[in-house]
Parts: sequence; C-alpha cells; structure tokens
Amino acid sequence: MLKGIPAAPGIVVGKAFVFGKEDLDVAPIDITEDQVPLEISRFEDALIQTRQEIIALQKKIAADMGSEHGEVFDAHLLVLEDRMLIEEVISRVKKEKLNIDYIFSQVLKRYAHVFSKIEDEYLKERISDINDVGRRILRNLLGRMRKGLAELEDEVVVVAHDLSPSDTASMHKNRVKGFITDIGGKTSHTAIMAKSLEIPAVVGLEIATEQIKNGDIVIVDGASGTVIVSPDADTLKKYQVQEEKLKGQTETLAAIRNLPAQTTDGRHVTLAANIEFPDEIPSVLEHGADGVGLYRTEYFYMNRKDLPVEDEQFEAYKNLATTFGDKPVIVRTLDLGGDKFISQFNLPKEMSPFMGWRAIRFCLGRPDIFKTQLRAILRASVFGNLKIMFPMISGVEELRRAKEMVEEAKKELKGRGIAYNAGIEIGAMIEVPSAALTSDVLAREVGFFSIGTNDLIQYALAVDRTNEKIAYLYEPTHPAVLRLVKNVVEAGHRANIWVGMCGEMSSEPSLAILLLGLGLDEFSMPSASLLEIKNVIRAISYETAKKIAEEALGLATGQEVNTFLTSRLKDLLPQMYGN
Amino acid sequence: MLKGIPAAPGIVVGKAFVFGKEDLDVAPIDITEDQVPLEISRFEDALIQTRQEIIALQKKIAADMGSEHGEVFDAHLLVLEDRMLIEEVISRVKKEKLNIDYIFSQVLKRYAHVFSKIEDEYLKERISDINDVGRRILRNLLGRMRKGLAELEDEVVVVAHDLSPSDTASMHKNRVKGFITDIGGKTSHTAIMAKSLEIPAVVGLEIATEQIKNGDIVIVDGASGTVIVSPDADTLKKYQVQEEKLKGQTETLAAIRNLPAQTTDGRHVTLAANIEFPDEIPSVLEHGADGVGLYRTEYFYMNRKDLPVEDEQFEAYKNLATTFGDKPVIVRTLDLGGDKFISQFNLPKEMSPFMGWRAIRFCLGRPDIFKTQLRAILRASVFGNLKIMFPMISGVEELRRAKEMVEEAKKELKGRGIAYNAGIEIGAMIEVPSAALTSDVLAREVGFFSIGTNDLIQYALAVDRTNEKIAYLYEPTHPAVLRLVKNVVEAGHRANIWVGMCGEMSSEPSLAILLLGLGLDEFSMPSASLLEIKNVIRAISYETAKKIAEEALGLATGQEVNTFLTSRLKDLLPQMYGN
Repeated sequence: MLKGIPAAPGIVVGKAFVFGKEDLDVAPIDITEDQVPLEISRFEDALIQTRQEIIALQKKIAADMGSEHGEVFDAHLLVLEDRMLIEEVISRVKKEKLNIDYIFSQVLKRYAHVFSKIEDEYLKERISDINDVGRRILRNLLGRMRKGLAELEDEVVVVAHDLSPSDTASMHKNRVKGFITDIGGKTSHTAIMAKSLEIPAVVGLEIATEQIKNGDIVIVDGASGTVIVSPDADTLKKYQVQEEKLKGQTETLAAIRNLPAQTTDGRHVTLAANIEFPDEIPSVLEHGADGVGLYRTEYFYMNRKDLPVEDEQFEAYKNLATTFGDKPVIVRTLDLGGDKFISQFNLPKEMSPFMGWRAIRFCLGRPDIFKTQLRAILRASVFGNLKIMFPMISGVEELRRAKEMVEEAKKELKGRGIAYNAGIEIGAMIEVPSAALTSDVLAREVGFFSIGTNDLIQYALAVDRTNEKIAYLYEPTHPAVLRLVKNVVEAGHRANIWVGMCGEMSSEPSLAILLLGLGLDEFSMPSASLLEIKNVIRAISYETAKKIAEEALGLATGQEVNTFLTSRLKDLLPQMYGN
Repeated sequence: MLKGIPAAPGIVVGKAFVFGKEDLDVAPIDITEDQVPLEISRFEDALIQTRQEIIALQKKIAADMGSEHGEVFDAHLLVLEDRMLIEEVISRVKKEKLNIDYIFSQVLKRYAHVFSKIEDEYLKERISDINDVGRRILRNLLGRMRKGLAELEDEVVVVAHDLSPSDTASMHKNRVKGFITDIGGKTSHTAIMAKSLEIPAVVGLEIATEQIKNGDIVIVDGASGTVIVSPDADTLKKYQVQEEKLKGQTETLAAIRNLPAQTTDGRHVTLAANIEFPDEIPSVLEHGADGVGLYRTEYFYMNRKDLPVEDEQFEAYKNLATTFGDKPVIVRTLDLGGDKFISQFNLPKEMSPFMGWRAIRFCLGRPDIFKTQLRAILRASVFGNLKIMFPMISGVEELRRAKEMVEEAKKELKGRGIAYNAGIEIGAMIEVPSAALTSDVLAREVGFFSIGTNDLIQYALAVDRTNEKIAYLYEPTHPAVLRLVKNVVEAGHRANIWVGMCGEMSSEPSLAILLLGLGLDEFSMPSASLLEIKNVIRAISYETAKKIAEEALGLATGQEVNTFLTSRLKDLLPQMYGN
C-alpha cells in the first residue's frame, strides 16, 4: 500500500500501465565487419519510422487542440536531423564493432549524463526532446512498440514519474481510468488536470514507478490518496463495493443538477467552474454550473513559439461568452510565473519564482502583451457576460495601474471604432496576504473579489506548495487562513461587493460548510466537484453553517479545525461521509 | 551618477578599487620549439607561487576567524594539483607553439564557458574555486601582483560585482572606506555586513563594475543609494561638507551613549544589537546597547566541512553570556535555508528556498543538529542572561514541538549532571504571516516575540527580497505590514509578554517613530544604528508617536505612509533630517 497526496477524488480498480519507464539497458553484441552496413541501415530505418510516428502524433494534437499546439513536435523532428548525434553513433559502430542498439543506447546515456547537471530552461527542453526522441528510436530499433498515452487500447491506470501538460493533453480520455505519479502536489498541473478530466488521481507517491509493474492490478483511492498494489481478494472486493457505491452517489448527485445551490433556510450562493481548456466547457454545462468563476488564460501562451494575437484570443473569449450567455464568465488575465513557465518569453531563472516577477507584475511590465489580451476580452464582452479579474494583486497602487490599462485598451478600441462593454465588471484575485489584509482598501476599487487560496495559503504559511518535504505544513484549515478569509469576506460585504473563491479549498465538502458560514457568495471549482458541493449546501442551514464557522475560528490548530469540520460533515450527511 | 539600493548609511569620498574585475585577454605570441621548456618552467613557477599565496591567506583567515574557516582554501589548493588542467595546458603549448599565458587563459575561458550553464551547488563551488585560483596563477604568470581585500594599502572604496562572505571576512577594515556592488538587495549578506562594519555601502547598482575604473574618485551616499563617479569640483565640495556634517552628527550622537532610550514623557524601550560574528561585540558595547536582541548562529556552520560540536558552540555562547552579564542575549537557533545555504548538509536544491525546508522546519527534522545547539545554549545559560529564540515559526504546533526539544535537551544535560538555567526564557520570531495573524495563540506559549520584518514583508507581499526586478514592491510601510505589526504588539501585550523587532525596519529613524507609537518594547538592529534611533526616541513623546502611528494606519499606500513619516521625522529633528 502506498500513501500519496490526494489529487482528484474517486475510486478505481484497474490494470497498471507504467508510462515513461523503459529499460534502456541493451546488451553489447560483437558484430563482424560485414554486418556494419546492415546495422547502419537498421538505424536509418528506425529514424524514418520515428519520423512518421512523430508526424502522426503532431497531427493528432493539432486536430484536438489547434495547430499551434503541435509546434512543440517540430523540435522533436529536428532531433532526428541532428548530424552530430547520428554520426557519433555510426562512427562508433564502425570503430567498436558492436550492435547499433547498444551503441545508440550508450550515446543516449552519455547525453543524459552530460546534460543532467544543466539547469538552463532552453537546454533542459532540448534534453528532454532528445531523450524522448531517443527512446522512440531505440524502441523502433528493438522492434518494440510502446504505447503512448494517445494510443492506449485497454482501460488502464496510468503510473508515471510525472505527467507533462503535453502528456495529459495527448491522453486518450476514455482509456485512462485513473492516474498516479511519483511527484507533484495537490495543486500541481497534473492534479488540476485530473480533477478537470474527472479521473481519480493520487500524486506525490515518490516510489510508485519503482514499486508498480506493468499489468499489476492497482486500486486508486483519489479521495484519501491511497494506492494499493496487487490487492488480495478481500481488499479488491471491498474497493469494488466502494467503487459501486461512489457510482451510486454520482447518480444521486446528478438528480440535483438543475436545483439551485440554496441552504435549507434560503441563502443562495453561486456555484461556478474553474476552467483551463475550451474542451472542458461541455463538462461545465453538464454539471449545472452557474457560470465560470475562473477562466485561466495561460493556455493560449503554452506549447508554442509565438505570442497569441488579439484576434485569436478574441475568438476564444467570444466563443465562451456566447456559450454562457447571461451567465458570468470571469476571465483571469495572464498569470504567468510561479510554476507556470512559458518558454517564449525567455524569462531569467528566478530564485523564488512564486515570489517573483509574475502575473500582474509581469503584465504591468509588458503592456504590449497585457493590452492585447485586454482588448481581446473587451471586444468579446459584447457577446455575453464577461468579467475581468487580475491575479496577484498585492496593493491598491498595482490595482489602480491595472485598471488604467483597461481604460487605455478601451480608448484604443474606441479609436478603432470597435464595440465593447464599457461597464465591464473588474475584480481582484485575493491571493497575496497583503491584499487580504488590506481588502477594505481594495474593495473600494473593484466589483468583486475572488480568493485564490492555493497561493494565499503558501504565502501566509511560507510553504512552497510544490515542495513535498514541507507538504505537512500546507494547511487550508490553519487558523491564520480562516482569519484571512473572514477578513476578506467582511471587507467585501461592507463595501457591498460580492466575494468568491476560486482556490482548491472551495471544492472540499467539509471546508464548504466553513466557507458558507463565513459568508462566501461564490464558490468556483473544477466542474467535477460542483454537484457534491451543491449537495452539501442544500443539506445545511445558513444559521448552522455560521455557528460552525464561529466555532472553527476559536480553535488553535489546523488539525483541530480539520477534525471538527470533518465530524460536522459526517453528522450532516452520514450516508455519504460516514464510514 | 548611479542609483542603487541603500545598504549602509554614511557618506564617503574616496578612490575606487575595482575588485575581481581583471582582464584575462592575453595576446597570443608565437614561440619556437626551443622556448617550450622555458614556457613550461614559467608555468611551474607560477603554480608554486600561487600555492604559497593561498597558504598565507589561509593562515590569515585561520588566525582572524578560527582554523575551521580556513578549510575553504583546501579546495583551492586541490585545484593546483588538478593534473587534467595542468596537462591540457602543457600539451597545448607543445602542440600549438604559443605563449603559455595565452594558452592558460584560453583553457580557463573554456572551463568557465563549459560550466557556466551548471546550477549544481557542488560543481558551482568547484568552478568558482577554479576561476579564483586560475586568475591567481595568471597574475603570477604575467608578473602582476593583484591586491586582495586583505592586502589593501590605501584607503579605498571597494567596487565589486558581488562580495562573498569570505571576501568581507578577509577585508582589511581600516582600509575600506565604503563599498558598492552590482548585485544584492537591502537585506543581502553584503548589506548586513556593511552595516555591522559601519561602512557606507550601496548595493544593486547593476553596472558599477562596468562604469567605474580603478582609481576613479567616487562619492558613496549610503543613505540615499547614490554613487557619483568622477564628480566635478562643486559636487565634491558639497559632499565633503556633508561628510563633515555627518561626522559632527556622529559626535553629537556619541554624547547620548550612556543615556537611557526614553521618550520625553518617560516611556522606556530596550535598544539591543543584532550580531553575527563574535568580532562585532566591541562595537555593540561601544554603542551602548542594552543587550543582544538577535544573535545569529549560522556563523558556526559556514565555510567548513564538519558540523560544530557542542563544546565549540558552548564556548562561544559562554563568552557572549559572560561579556554581557545581566544584559539579555537572545540566541536565535539555526536559521539555515532561504538565502543562507550551508554546504555541508548537501541539501537538495529547492524551487522556492525561502518557502522551503528551512530554519525551525529543518531543525525539527534534524533533532541531532538541533539538540546539540540547544544543549550548548543551555549549558552557557548559567553564565549570564541568555534567551532562546526560534526562527520561522508558522503555527502553534511547530512552536510546541520546538519547546519539547528544549525539554529533551534539558533532560539530557540533567542526565549528564551538567548545570543549566531551568527557567531560560523562550521566544518566537514572528516572520511568517500566519504567525503574525495568530500571535494571540502563540503568545500563550512564549516569554517574548521578536518580529523579523525582512522575511515577514517578503511573505506578506509575496516579494522575494533578493529579486531586483520587483524590489519596488518590497515596502516596509505597506499598510498590510503596519497592520500585522500592530496585531502582534497588541496580542503580545494582552498576554503580558514583551514584543521586539529584529528586522531592518527597526533601524530606520522614520519607521522607529511609527514602531514606538505602535507600542514596540524592544528595537534590535545593527549596532551602528543604535545611537541614531536612541536620539529619535529621546526627542519625541510617546503620546505624539501614538498619534503619528494612528494617522499612518489610516493611509492607503506604502508611499503615502513613507512620505508622511519622513515629514514627521524632519519636523522632529530638523537639524539632522531637514534638507
């Protein structure tokens, strides 16, 4: 049994598919002088075959996600034309008279070793390209076909050291029943994708790829972060029953899809979805969201070499605005930096990227990029109910400068004679402690707040949320976090603006009771969690939630708050959360 | 005129000594076959001469700072025995028939280039060793003697890209009138050393080593962060007058050395010193400190390969306890991590070191190291008035665990029959926002608080204080910071414990008024600032300071607070702070 970090809820029992772990140990075999040309021609065939594979994959991604996202594979194709690498292999085969797969694997290992110490972002990408392509070539040399995530035929549980955004993007969604990774935290990209795809997932297992073999039966409990390898019959039975039970609950929840998110004593809250990719829209609609509380726009800037132009962004925002009609769609302006690194900007490596030149700081420093995005949002705003939200606001001066940029963008559109919603609502993400502490001052400047708990917690507790060594300190229930949230909600309400939350915290059922009691007006989360949270809200009265929140605020430690809220949730919905 | 970050106050006019910037461009000269042995013997002589230089430097450091601090030079000596490097040079001279200084400089450049992309901490140190030693060898080859910081003969202003701890440690204090660096921030090691040595300094000038030549006359204004290169006669005159005026003020301040730090209406505060190295003790006494508010203990662990044993630490703590007698000395337990990296632990590189496994987190994970330090402090506690302070406390659970470790250390000493002060006072540094926000809970557990503003500000504002790109956001006067400080002081007082501050903030005269008004009980700072702050406190009434603090708390931006406080300070002491 392995314990990891719960990333996306749900239970799944399935066959393991260990991804990205391949044995490159090829044995050396002596060859004769006569065999040298044969070996070289085998190598050339493998290169050609690999080229075809990559082009096919590139086409698939381009069809699924748009052609600019296929560009990342251009670099892979270039590796196949790397004369240095190819000639080193050929000349060593001639000289050493050993089988070419052995020589090639040795050359690959040398590359990996030489570059393993290098931290430069550009070179790092090159090395991962070389490794990726090199492994493909070797597979083809050895006549082994390896299944990529895009080409899975069976339903499997994917086991990987880590999954890159391009791995998850190329994943065949119907075939992946769950996934588990060695690294990553609760709010890593992989975890967010898992939630968005509604696939049970556990991350940060550290040794999963070492302990699990291809074809092993594994049980993934995404809610508790437990993974059981090769379970005995009793355990298997137990989890299969639970899996069934969860399916039953999913059906129960489906029944409230069209009912309002309203407490038993009539307090109504807004339940909105966080989305990152356009292909998440059907899931948002299916789960009955009241709108989009956080539309991440980094997607436009990823896996490509140029910057997205205004028209390209406009089309995407317009599509979203039209789809949701009157329902609000909150577009967060570019939140680059931290763990979201975007290659085309060639940003210098920072010592503390989370506390560095990122998000609104970056945008205010690059008005060319920022205003292109603002104009695209403004143009799309006439097609629906779009709102603009700025990330990483730390003080009122920054917020005022960002708002000035919006005014400039409006003026530019006016000059071009293009329509926009002049009264578009502007909000601030509250994710820096200084913003939470001065939310009374900020509230005078905006139409709404959305609390970003993922970052707020890490700054407030000085805990890097991606660092597993101190993951035990990352507590959403830490009394300091509760006090900050309370302060923001109260400051917002005193200024007559609504206060939402788009961090992971709002999608935890026990925490939802607390947040409801603190007076939160809007809960935005991965769409897969919406019905579960609606179910909690519909089961409790606002008065009770307020009392629970008050009691939680009186406790001294995060652990005490957690235990208390979990027990209140069990009392409230024993059939769902009782043991 | 160059603008940088003010690091240590004071004005100095002096001759520039550009440190660490040397021209490695040596011209190639053809040599004959006959000359080859001569070139090789020149090279061997240079190696021997370099060896002697390094051994002499090693002895000097060992004498000044203890033998373990000379160990860093063992690595330098090893470079001289690097056969790979030496043989590459010799074989290329034989083959290419060029002068050996040219060949050697080319080999050095190649090493620098090859390794310039490498981020591995161990290899980085190796490369900086190779560079350092390589430059020494080249100097000796070329017959040029270069002055090290330890061997300065004139009084100079040191101009450097950066100064390492070993540079500042080997600096001849009477000869260095000021220093300016390209990189670094207000709270970098260089800046802290400058304050401690009472040498005017400006850091973060970016292009100082490019713009300033050896022998240039430079004016360093450490208070404003201005550096003027080759000033005209009028400017020179003006600054010389100011330099004189400052000297006069220093004399004025010396007069209050033995008077209490008391407001005009009788509120008394404690003025204590921050120290890092034992050789700062005379300066602390000379400036009339009421004790040591922050004794940094990382010093023991730096520039050496082994860990300091209990006895070694005990002797140092005992020395301090005896020297200060009844006056309190607050020993902060090991605050490793962040920008303080200690090589012998071989810690993995973290993505966000400031928010990583550091300080108390590290100590709780390594009880062997932590308890050795605690036992050494406890043993020394019977010789004076020592207190223990824990860094980076983020919540009450952590604090309780740290206190348990103290109890265990006491038990161990009891078992060994060794005396200690059973009632030693324990305090918490408040430098994580969550600690400031829950200071009411923490106050029940300790005897005092000391607010560490350097880190508190960076977490509260999510601004890495070492990142120049966002230095404009690092504002001690941000309303959020003021509110946190107010909250901590009030929580402490409600629990009847005293509240101090050991961050840079307490040594700024205008901010001292605010902090006094907020009710701060103890101000701890570099000893050079003590008399200036005492002068401010003796000039104002507590009632006035309280009113000023209240008014400052009502302002919306850090800039407004700053302007307001600066103007109040000018009104208060126009002869010192008026223009």
